[in-house]
Amino acid sequence: MSVVINARMVAFAVHALAVVASVMVFVWSICYRGGFAWESTSKTLIFNLHPVLTLTGLVILGGEATISYKSLPFEKRVNKLIHLVLHAIAIILGILGIYAAFKHHNEKHIPNLYTIHSWVGIGVIVLYALQWLYSFIVYFFPGGSSALRRDLLPWHVFLGVFVYVLAVGNSVLGFLEKLTFLEKSGLDKFGSEAFLVNFMAIITILFGTFVLLIVYSKSPPSVEEDNYSYSAI
Amino acid sequence: MSVVINARMVAFAVHALAVVASVMVFVWSICYRGGFAWESTSKTLIFNLHPVLTLTGLVILGGEATISYKSLPFEKRVNKLIHLVLHAIAIILGILGIYAAFKHHNEKHIPNLYTIHSWVGIGVIVLYALQWLYSFIVYFFPGGSSALRRDLLPWHVFLGVFVYVLAVGNSVLGFLEKLTFLEKSGLDKFGSEAFLVNFMAIITILFGTFVLLIVYSKSPPSVEEDNYSYSAI
Repeated sequence: MSVVINARMVAFAVHALAVVASVMVFVWSICYRGGFAWESTSKTLIFNLHPVLTLTGLVILGGEATISYKSLPFEKRVNKLIHLVLHAIAIILGILGIYAAFKHHNEKHIPNLYTIHSWVGIGVIVLYALQWLYSFIVYFFPGGSSALRRDLLPWHVFLGVFVYVLAVGNSVLGFLEKLTFLEKSGLDKFGSEAFLVNFMAIITILFGTFVLLIVYSKSPPSVEEDNYSYSAI
Repeated sequence: MSVVINARMVAFAVHALAVVASVMVFVWSICYRGGFAWESTSKTLIFNLHPVLTLTGLVILGGEATISYKSLPFEKRVNKLIHLVLHAIAIILGILGIYAAFKHHNEKHIPNLYTIHSWVGIGVIVLYALQWLYSFIVYFFPGGSSALRRDLLPWHVFLGVFVYVLAVGNSVLGFLEKLTFLEKSGLDKFGSEAFLVNFMAIITILFGTFVLLIVYSKSPPSVEEDNYSYSAI
């Protein structure tokens, strides 16, 4: 039940949307929200690390990692290494981003973990790390039997896609939550910042959609199978 | 790349979660938010129709419609009829639910369409209706050629899943948005209503996940293929 597309071509759209989303989240944080700081009396600057690290980490690097088997021109062994290293970096950036949110809350004496965004966020980082860990053991080192790799692959894909969709959706939840707070504090509902954040959410959804289009695709028959086919076994 | 499961067994989990989510959204709207009205001086009662109609329509009936080919024991012709009728009812309930949100906004002089929840909501209902329409033409009446049905099927599934994930995600966005408004107006962040709404969001995500698990599954080899296989051709 795979759609027939040229994955490399769609990957260009993914890379372009990755650049757009990254630029937007930096513009938002720096030009509209005042920039970043790890230690500051202005606690907003600590918070600003959260959307930048989680979006560029879990969503953008995570998305690029997800499609690496089909988007990159290297041999399978190299693609696999890129796949697992990019996912590892995504997890590290995600953990730092979540830590920044807790640090901001704690230093401003805001309660933690009362929103669905925070609940799903904890779920995403735990499941993402577990997915990485068992996949590393089965598919990289020490590596499971050929039968185990083959039988587990559909679950590796389904669970990976599940966690990824949660990560993308949770970014949009975060944008909505932050914007609602800001609008309740007086930000113009139809001002430039509101449009920037809402369009960033749309770009994030489109990015995630193209990533999943590549995951659930197969190449046209004319394209050489070895370079384009999806196989993590 | 399909996971091997017994779709009928997983469908029981889907039905159970459908009941739980439906009860929760009615309990929330009636016991915590005061119930429903189409015309009232208490505009909240008009709004309350929105989560009930969109959740039970687009998400729950839409989910049951999506899995009908694999969850129901009837022959393919009957399953197809149930698939398209349930989706049609889902769309009608969705439109009524969205209308209720606009009616509430207009009568309370709240601006329309400034949140990502409303933007995605409009996108969902338009894409859902378009998906239904071209699928009706190609797969039901007058019906496309055999080659067209076969070639279009992976796209029918991918686009259907895309719209469905958007619908599920948008419900969660709606829960977050409404809860954030209520908490900004003084609702206890760790009170029973906040937990009810957040757990309803979790149940909704689980429901959608099991629906998609069934979509991307195939039956164990021992199960009779005719009854369980997914085919809309």
